[in-house]
Amino acid sequence: MTTMTAPAGADVAALVREMAQRARAATAQLVRMTPGAKNIALERMAKALETAAPRIQAENQRDLAAGREKGLSAAMLDRLELNVMRIAAMVQGINEVRALPDPVGEIFDVQTRPNGLRVGRMRSPLGVVGFIYESRPNVTADAACLCLKSGNAVILRGGSEAIHSNLAMVDAIRGALREAGAPEDAVQLIPTTDRAAVSALLALEGLVDVVIPRGGRSLIERVVAEARMPVIKHYDGNCHIYVDEGADLDMAQRIAVNAKTQRTGVCNAVESLVVHSAVAGAFLEATLDVLIDKGVEIRGDETVCALEPRAVPAKAGDWTAEYLDKIISVKVVDSFDQAVAWINTHGSHHTDAIVTRDHGRAMRFLSEIDSACVFVNASTRFSDGGEFGLGCEIGISTEKLHARGPMGLRELTSVKWVVFGTGQTRG
Amino acid sequence: MTTMTAPAGADVAALVREMAQRARAATAQLVRMTPGAKNIALERMAKALETAAPRIQAENQRDLAAGREKGLSAAMLDRLELNVMRIAAMVQGINEVRALPDPVGEIFDVQTRPNGLRVGRMRSPLGVVGFIYESRPNVTADAACLCLKSGNAVILRGGSEAIHSNLAMVDAIRGALREAGAPEDAVQLIPTTDRAAVSALLALEGLVDVVIPRGGRSLIERVVAEARMPVIKHYDGNCHIYVDEGADLDMAQRIAVNAKTQRTGVCNAVESLVVHSAVAGAFLEATLDVLIDKGVEIRGDETVCALEPRAVPAKAGDWTAEYLDKIISVKVVDSFDQAVAWINTHGSHHTDAIVTRDHGRAMRFLSEIDSACVFVNASTRFSDGGEFGLGCEIGISTEKLHARGPMGLRELTSVKWVVFGTGQTRG
Repeated sequence: MTTMTAPAGADVAALVREMAQRARAATAQLVRMTPGAKNIALERMAKALETAAPRIQAENQRDLAAGREKGLSAAMLDRLELNVMRIAAMVQGINEVRALPDPVGEIFDVQTRPNGLRVGRMRSPLGVVGFIYESRPNVTADAACLCLKSGNAVILRGGSEAIHSNLAMVDAIRGALREAGAPEDAVQLIPTTDRAAVSALLALEGLVDVVIPRGGRSLIERVVAEARMPVIKHYDGNCHIYVDEGADLDMAQRIAVNAKTQRTGVCNAVESLVVHSAVAGAFLEATLDVLIDKGVEIRGDETVCALEPRAVPAKAGDWTAEYLDKIISVKVVDSFDQAVAWINTHGSHHTDAIVTRDHGRAMRFLSEIDSACVFVNASTRFSDGGEFGLGCEIGISTEKLHARGPMGLRELTSVKWVVFGTGQTRG
Repeated sequence: MTTMTAPAGADVAALVREMAQRARAATAQLVRMTPGAKNIALERMAKALETAAPRIQAENQRDLAAGREKGLSAAMLDRLELNVMRIAAMVQGINEVRALPDPVGEIFDVQTRPNGLRVGRMRSPLGVVGFIYESRPNVTADAACLCLKSGNAVILRGGSEAIHSNLAMVDAIRGALREAGAPEDAVQLIPTTDRAAVSALLALEGLVDVVIPRGGRSLIERVVAEARMPVIKHYDGNCHIYVDEGADLDMAQRIAVNAKTQRTGVCNAVESLVVHSAVAGAFLEATLDVLIDKGVEIRGDETVCALEPRAVPAKAGDWTAEYLDKIISVKVVDSFDQAVAWINTHGSHHTDAIVTRDHGRAMRFLSEIDSACVFVNASTRFSDGGEFGLGCEIGISTEKLHARGPMGLRELTSVKWVVFGTGQTRG
């Protein structure tokens, strides 16, 4: 993790392949580490980031200066910044993960078959994880600690605008691993911003077990198209809140306003309200005022526009949009069934909530909405690894297979079958 | 499911897309069916196959006649045949699946967060499953019943040589679904043998949630290359048995002989023995004789060839080969660690077994062997959905993600997050 000289072409491919081979070699050691040994490494990792904070901040300043020169937006620069509070949060995240149960080696669902075989499942590491992200550099520490605790080696490919921050952090993390007697190649960062490195990584079927892309749609689509190994995608959050007939309208308003305005640029912010016609008048009259007062633009269907003159008529694209901004679409429906069909058709299968007093419809919503996270009477903003008790998250999967929703330790493991016999043969 | 006239080109693509749309529509009904309603449909399905047995056998005779004309091997013709015993076994498989707990809607791991939110997981259907198989036609019934019980709609694409058998079975199954008031489009068979239908299916990202190919390597590789949606692969079984230092050599012999000779053309037959040098002399002297007597060809390393003159020197390709035949490779190692490294490098991560008396090494083998199924003191031939208690299986996955090893009901479900709130908003 020393050089920033970007090797070119074949050299990049050779570099990435060599990193993957070192990662693969590290997995053989990782699978043998006890939970205690991994926790010691995590403790050192947290301490090392604390100690290296001044250097990390200095390197982060280089990234910020380059970002300003490149004309990054204020929002982008804010995401890029690693101030003391954010470094402290990374350290705390590592300590929270350390306190969680170790998922590796857990044996469960053991059943004794008629022939006496005991057949069960065991959680084991995935192996080598490729993590490609454009997000804030604090994700680097989250990914490193989650992968280590779940027994995986990780190859990190961060955003080019955060390269100096990431190199400084990974340098500290690898130092901590060495000190703890853990394989330092469990955490590696691709040290070049050359885009060819991503293609090289995606070609390493058999060496890299899974690739997790986290970032914009174009990045993810490129990864899906090129990858030869399984990919866990992290697509958009076009989250819905459905306000049911007979709902507590004060609660519905609090939840809707929180989910839209507490933070707008995040995937678990609500982008669309679906309101039952029986409560549309009362609910929208009160709630749209509050949203508009907070600077939110309303894009509504005909009913909504008739109720609220400041609303803009929604166009077709509005119903599937992830605004990440102070905009919300609002649709009135005539039945619960219509709401479910609407959300399943127009949502992005990320996080959807119902506000209701009716138990039957609450339970039907959980079953019938085809999304990673389905909520009853709570803000969609809780769709988050930390809020779900995972310590931190490597991302929020929009896959249906393997990992769905916030991905923590368990989602970074595989489940094998284990069989305990006493000499059984098949007749 | 009436026509066998193969539409061409664009028509095939339109046909497959229309089938997928009907499957998607069926999922909305499936997710609302109670376990009881699904079990009634399964009961009718079993009965319908029983009743239709004469017609199924007649259609199977057409396939067999065409197969003989095409010059299929005796083994292929045997796999293709649907005799009374095999139809009875299909019926029994459906009844076994019916008796299993319904996986859909299971809520588990619910934890109450400090803010009072109850956060848990719920098992839900995957949605639309595309199943592409070359195997024996009885797989058709297994796939249909597993998918129905797990709440999925399935689009079946069977081998061209079994098309008449499959059409007859699916016709009976769909009739049973109609009678039971279940959506008949939950089970559809692509009614043409046109290869373009597979490409059409693999292009339907968003309509088809997952594709499961089960067959030869070239089929699977084609599916992986073309598919836009997740694929659960079913690759080779190059299964190993490691005979440890101090193992019960009689048990080791019984297990090795059973795993090699009880049935050879199957993915869970053993293809390679790895023997600790401390027991190599005694074990191989007794066991190789028995294997050779049973017509098994031994391909050994230098030590083995020195011990047994009838052994053939193994070539490099032997160590990774899935013979599916009366051939076995035999390797002598000097340590447990060497055995683990050898199996992880040369095996196919399907099923591997250790024969040992040592508890520590037994548990290390389970942890450190990176395979879908790891056994202690049992024949690899038990690696099978039925033997594991799954009723039947849609296949044996060699993936590490989502489903690993025999795939039954649970592996055909997704897990979503469910959150029960009382009006919580994020601060």
